[in-house]
Amino acid sequence: MLSYRKSSLVTLCWLSLFGWSGDIVAQPEGMLSAEESDPGMMGWMVGSPPPADKLIMQPESDFFSFPKLRWTVCHIRELMPTKQVGKGIMPAIPFRYALDDNIDEVSFIPLGGTTPMTWEQSLSANYTDGVLILHKGKVVYEKYLGCLGEAGKHAAMSMTKSVTGLLAEILVVEGKLDETARVSSIVPELEGSAFGSATVRQVMDMTTGLNYSEDYSNPKADIWVYSQAASPLPKPKGYVGPNGYFEYLQTVKQQGDHGEAFGYRTINSDALGWIIARVEGKDVAALTSERIWQKIGAEQDGYMTVDAKGVPFAGGGLSAGLRDLGRLGQLMLDEGKLNGKRLFPKQVVRNIRAGGDKGAFAKAGYATLAGGSYRSMWWVFHNDHGAFAARGVHGQTIYVDPTADMVIVRLASYPVAKNAKIDPTSLPAYQAVAEYLLQK
Amino acid sequence: MLSYRKSSLVTLCWLSLFGWSGDIVAQPEGMLSAEESDPGMMGWMVGSPPPADKLIMQPESDFFSFPKLRWTVCHIRELMPTKQVGKGIMPAIPFRYALDDNIDEVSFIPLGGTTPMTWEQSLSANYTDGVLILHKGKVVYEKYLGCLGEAGKHAAMSMTKSVTGLLAEILVVEGKLDETARVSSIVPELEGSAFGSATVRQVMDMTTGLNYSEDYSNPKADIWVYSQAASPLPKPKGYVGPNGYFEYLQTVKQQGDHGEAFGYRTINSDALGWIIARVEGKDVAALTSERIWQKIGAEQDGYMTVDAKGVPFAGGGLSAGLRDLGRLGQLMLDEGKLNGKRLFPKQVVRNIRAGGDKGAFAKAGYATLAGGSYRSMWWVFHNDHGAFAARGVHGQTIYVDPTADMVIVRLASYPVAKNAKIDPTSLPAYQAVAEYLLQK
Repeated sequence: MLSYRKSSLVTLCWLSLFGWSGDIVAQPEGMLSAEESDPGMMGWMVGSPPPADKLIMQPESDFFSFPKLRWTVCHIRELMPTKQVGKGIMPAIPFRYALDDNIDEVSFIPLGGTTPMTWEQSLSANYTDGVLILHKGKVVYEKYLGCLGEAGKHAAMSMTKSVTGLLAEILVVEGKLDETARVSSIVPELEGSAFGSATVRQVMDMTTGLNYSEDYSNPKADIWVYSQAASPLPKPKGYVGPNGYFEYLQTVKQQGDHGEAFGYRTINSDALGWIIARVEGKDVAALTSERIWQKIGAEQDGYMTVDAKGVPFAGGGLSAGLRDLGRLGQLMLDEGKLNGKRLFPKQVVRNIRAGGDKGAFAKAGYATLAGGSYRSMWWVFHNDHGAFAARGVHGQTIYVDPTADMVIVRLASYPVAKNAKIDPTSLPAYQAVAEYLLQK
Repeated sequence: MLSYRKSSLVTLCWLSLFGWSGDIVAQPEGMLSAEESDPGMMGWMVGSPPPADKLIMQPESDFFSFPKLRWTVCHIRELMPTKQVGKGIMPAIPFRYALDDNIDEVSFIPLGGTTPMTWEQSLSANYTDGVLILHKGKVVYEKYLGCLGEAGKHAAMSMTKSVTGLLAEILVVEGKLDETARVSSIVPELEGSAFGSATVRQVMDMTTGLNYSEDYSNPKADIWVYSQAASPLPKPKGYVGPNGYFEYLQTVKQQGDHGEAFGYRTINSDALGWIIARVEGKDVAALTSERIWQKIGAEQDGYMTVDAKGVPFAGGGLSAGLRDLGRLGQLMLDEGKLNGKRLFPKQVVRNIRAGGDKGAFAKAGYATLAGGSYRSMWWVFHNDHGAFAARGVHGQTIYVDPTADMVIVRLASYPVAKNAKIDPTSLPAYQAVAEYLLQK
């Protein structure tokens, strides 16, 4: 079980790897604060044309750098091709509201810290762009900051994986996808790759053994080959590498045994996207629309980025509205039932909540998530509230707490990608709000 | 006044320039028919991944070629960056329906032809993807074909110009934009270009004198420099030309006097987009959302393509749903009032309907539009019904007939770009439906 209130030596040591020392200072050293880096105040893309130093455009290394990042997370579609995740033309089903301003004053001790922080303070500390709290199915808290408004869409980053994983888990429970099958029996093109010999479940839980490096400091790391393959832009002249997610996945070699250790690698989600697309004959964007967005009473279309061949980025491409992600969280909390309609069997969420292999997870050494596991691309905390979450870099989360009957969606543009930097001022904050709501 | 029933020698001669001879054969010689080229039947982009010969991807010269074009017109956003034209989060205002199947049997004589054709036959002849007919504010006919469904969006092509022109006309009537002002007094960056010395009205009515060639067969034609400037893709290494619409517009030189002749050149719309963005401090996509899409009870967001700096393509970038374009048409028919709310002064539509300089228009030699004019980027037929229209290549139209209290929206993917090929089986069809509805 995760304890948010105690600082453990492990946590301290691990955080120090990311430059953390002493008490929590949420604002990364030398970086502009949330208020200073507000994209409205920075003036990004304002003017016709914007001044040269206010332009945000390709390449990706530029538009995803802080502080430009704080504008980009709401404007992904303006920078690259995207595929609609359509809500259909049905009217939205509005949320009921029971707003509670006292939540702003709920306080907590940041992980590894000693000085209390309030919920309201944590919004700045985490460079929050939007936050929604649902309690007993009603909105008790909703706020838009940074680049986000209620009619806007925000990058979900790796929360996309949880959508892909949810779709796969639905297919498993429906009996359409055999979790024990070798991947190569479903996608023969992956036969010669590391994925071919893995089971569907190993891909779903990211316990595949992959020879794949995400060491950004190494120019020869696999992540760069992957990035170039995945780019939707036409390939440079003379380029001979893989084009698109599917071609790249075929080149990934095995390292170690499958099923031994959790290894958080986006390419598992891309492989899972391929598996479910093959099983259903429709890509992940179409399936997300059909199985989720058209069914949850969504008020906005979402969208997904695509590679140069139109394949949606199953590992990180989704952008969506805050309240629609809240609907997804509520659907998870209510085990597949929303607005009085069952969208998929209870067992889907029960399987996810039960979690994955804790031993395999522990090997990955996530200090802020110690004692947790990863199941069908959802993070399971195994705390006494039975909480689980979708998580994405730079601070994205859909946090589901069944005990408190609570869902928190937080969209953010924290300057540093790693959630280990953001967890100290967010995980205990979620726990504190849950405890506050439980006492109401 | 345009006469749709008589074939004139001028019409015949002009059509012959596009390979037309004898009676109307809507299907261009050697091309697949509408049924044969149906994108569903062709199997474009089906499969994970689609087979290599079914892939549609960059470059533009490929994805906009027939028959791929028939898929592309519904999927522009999957091929390039786009900016949302948001409808906001208000519920849509549904249309009332009074469907009339007899419309299928309405017949007409194609321009320059002798053999009658029915409305239903004209849908195939014109490679129609979607068609909506409104009469007295109710939907009397609605059909989806090709790549389009009721929840889909279709490229509006040059109908985008009419949206840009409408926004400008609204600003003129509201007194925010002086139509007699020199463009350089509003956008000083255009001082040294042909646009600088033109009046706003000359740009709105495309009577600027521009040294600009759209001769696609000449590799040195200006259109190619423009296309490269406008492309949202990163520029090739060593590229030194203009980047984006605004930089390109500054390079355009004058040829001939302004105000003398109508010359249909997309760059006028781009210049007008710049003018209204400067006046309002918001780009055309944002203004279209604010002034139109959020106000008409739209059921879908639209979107616009952008250049590499995020500037929306005011001359052709819009994609939208069929019924939402119907709402725009009804708004024009009802002179700025829709669903009981006035969105802009009557005078806006009255100015457009009054038309532009017929003498200047005649010099451009549009045989199928003889007697017509162009005003604020709308085509005015000056026929006895007072009809006017937004028009886009490959068969797009919003056709407004005030006498018949009728709006027709037709979205299509005709193999040939020029509407002169499509008008013979569409303009008289619209007139025939109008006459049928008048007699009801």
